[in-house]
Amino acid sequence: MKKIIFGLSFLFCGLAFVSFRSHEFKLGDELSLDSLRKLYSGPSHLWPSANVDKNLKWEELGPLQPSPVNLKNDSIRKVVELGKTLFFDPRLSGSNQISCSSCHAPDLNWSDGRQVSIGHDHQPNKRNAPSLENVWYFKKLFWDGRANSLEEQAQMPLEAHNEMNQDVKNLARKMSKIKGYRPLFNDAFGTPTITNQRIFESLATFQRTIVSRKTPFDRFIEGEIKALTDQQVVGLHLFRTKARCINCHNGPYFTDNDFHNLGLTYYGRKYEDLGLYNITKNPEDVGKFKTPGLRNVMKTAPWFHNGLFDDMDGILNMYNMGMPMQVVKPGQEKDPLLPKNDKLLRGIRLSNSEKQALISFLDALSSSSYVVREVALPK
Amino acid sequence: MKKIIFGLSFLFCGLAFVSFRSHEFKLGDELSLDSLRKLYSGPSHLWPSANVDKNLKWEELGPLQPSPVNLKNDSIRKVVELGKTLFFDPRLSGSNQISCSSCHAPDLNWSDGRQVSIGHDHQPNKRNAPSLENVWYFKKLFWDGRANSLEEQAQMPLEAHNEMNQDVKNLARKMSKIKGYRPLFNDAFGTPTITNQRIFESLATFQRTIVSRKTPFDRFIEGEIKALTDQQVVGLHLFRTKARCINCHNGPYFTDNDFHNLGLTYYGRKYEDLGLYNITKNPEDVGKFKTPGLRNVMKTAPWFHNGLFDDMDGILNMYNMGMPMQVVKPGQEKDPLLPKNDKLLRGIRLSNSEKQALISFLDALSSSSYVVREVALPK
Repeated sequence: MKKIIFGLSFLFCGLAFVSFRSHEFKLGDELSLDSLRKLYSGPSHLWPSANVDKNLKWEELGPLQPSPVNLKNDSIRKVVELGKTLFFDPRLSGSNQISCSSCHAPDLNWSDGRQVSIGHDHQPNKRNAPSLENVWYFKKLFWDGRANSLEEQAQMPLEAHNEMNQDVKNLARKMSKIKGYRPLFNDAFGTPTITNQRIFESLATFQRTIVSRKTPFDRFIEGEIKALTDQQVVGLHLFRTKARCINCHNGPYFTDNDFHNLGLTYYGRKYEDLGLYNITKNPEDVGKFKTPGLRNVMKTAPWFHNGLFDDMDGILNMYNMGMPMQVVKPGQEKDPLLPKNDKLLRGIRLSNSEKQALISFLDALSSSSYVVREVALPK
Repeated sequence: MKKIIFGLSFLFCGLAFVSFRSHEFKLGDELSLDSLRKLYSGPSHLWPSANVDKNLKWEELGPLQPSPVNLKNDSIRKVVELGKTLFFDPRLSGSNQISCSSCHAPDLNWSDGRQVSIGHDHQPNKRNAPSLENVWYFKKLFWDGRANSLEEQAQMPLEAHNEMNQDVKNLARKMSKIKGYRPLFNDAFGTPTITNQRIFESLATFQRTIVSRKTPFDRFIEGEIKALTDQQVVGLHLFRTKARCINCHNGPYFTDNDFHNLGLTYYGRKYEDLGLYNITKNPEDVGKFKTPGLRNVMKTAPWFHNGLFDDMDGILNMYNMGMPMQVVKPGQEKDPLLPKNDKLLRGIRLSNSEKQALISFLDALSSSSYVVREVALPK
């Protein structure tokens, strides 16, 4: 880890140098701050064109969507309540000490604030625990997309030796011994029988109710034109144009629900992680990781799949120069697994004031947190 | 918890109203920004007088002091290394899953980011886990000062039922079964014998090495006059004068090493916590909690002994009106335990721009973090 840090320090020195040289913030000849605010105060189909690559499938930024879970439906609400109880119950783990909430804590924005999570017997995880906010929106789960549904996802951390280390073959029997769970399963599923499938389904259903609250950005696009500061309006414009963020971070949750290689594979080195390729075995997927959503991003440091970055300014410096390029060693030229950075990434050369405006816009994607009371555990 | 939140929301609405009415930022007739920077660029004994109460024992703000642990001394270094290993070892807990680092994580600034920590069997703690940075400086440990040394402190979380839940009578025997520890104890103490005293001493000695790094504030007082922005210089001045922070947050670590009642006792209510009084049984100590240091304070939210506040602007609004006052119910007038807010607290009535300057100064007390590698655990 130390070596990586040292390596990155050098990289950042270089990046800082590059970024200082980049030209100062200009909005373009025709756009004053006033006209920019006016443009963005209108409906989004009248906003300035987004700077997206030709033939790219993308969606305009937009307001929060409702969770797919209908809590007015009594029987679904009972499944959610059961799922919430299980989510906070450490008895789902082999040691009876680690629950889903250990790494997805509501008061840490449904993550844990760590670079990588610490699991059973204090073993470290390989990747950063993602926030569960709006997780219902993702088509594939995990940084490498190895699960196709939250139901499928739930089993994996439960049985991972460095996460909850539970023998899932024994899980239903173990939980059945806790008498207090029987009425909860009965309410949720009509009979008190405890099965893995019911456990995973209720955990998944509860997680689909974890949604962001309204942000200044949402209030702005709903017509409250003062909800964004001038600097944030400039940031929004940069996000969609010069900075090209919108190529991947688009739609209501600022994610394209897709996978990209940013150049952080550590290919051939100690911390190598080839991401999506590990699952598909398709050489085109080497080093691809899921595009995270950006709602509340400023509350979920450290960032990236390995949690190695806790400085948004540093991250923008990295994007500024198009991310690190894979060094091709002699003999590797034809290696089909040689990672290739996504073509969407280019040096965007933002000035310091442009970077500040962009970060200020990201701040406008933060919503206030609400207190989630832990549930009393059945006995 | 919800009730408290609702109550506080109302309070904050009131506070916001008060703070909007307060007069706008003025430096005073005689001080321009330039002259202010000039004044503070000189040695601290020539700084403008601090606005501290008569007869108050206080110390001027100052640079980092060296840790009292001499790491050049080989035998002390071995004690530190042992202490570090034990600090990360979950086998110090009854369940073998919770270590000191679970609630004092280096990558979370030696705290856990939670309102209150979650311990054995997911039981919540009563108070917020404090950061261990510069903990060597404190004369008494815990929010209520119930330990007089780090050695004495170490035992308490180890055996608390809602923290590590270890039977300490059995601790030395349990750890002696881990053969890999014998050479480490031998190196540190001259014989391989494992005793509780040796465990606590090495944990304490390691913790005395956990120190802040240099901040922009330190560089400023060392003569690098551009290390603070204009706004931060104004914030420093406000900190020492109008805002009166320096009455309690003084010295090199921005703490008077003392205890004060800020009015957050919840006296007579569900979440009542009388702090220092629980230890001394002296009615004058009702509701007093330790003054935390402010180095890296912007990295250690949520704040206060109950971790209930994660918005520094909201906290300043509360200080602005002199903190909540205890409502005296009929018949309580002569109750010796009726909490009384510290006399040092008064409505300071900062304007919005003054609050911003103060927060900006607090940002200048942040230092970069360094990566602490977890130690391989002996087998």
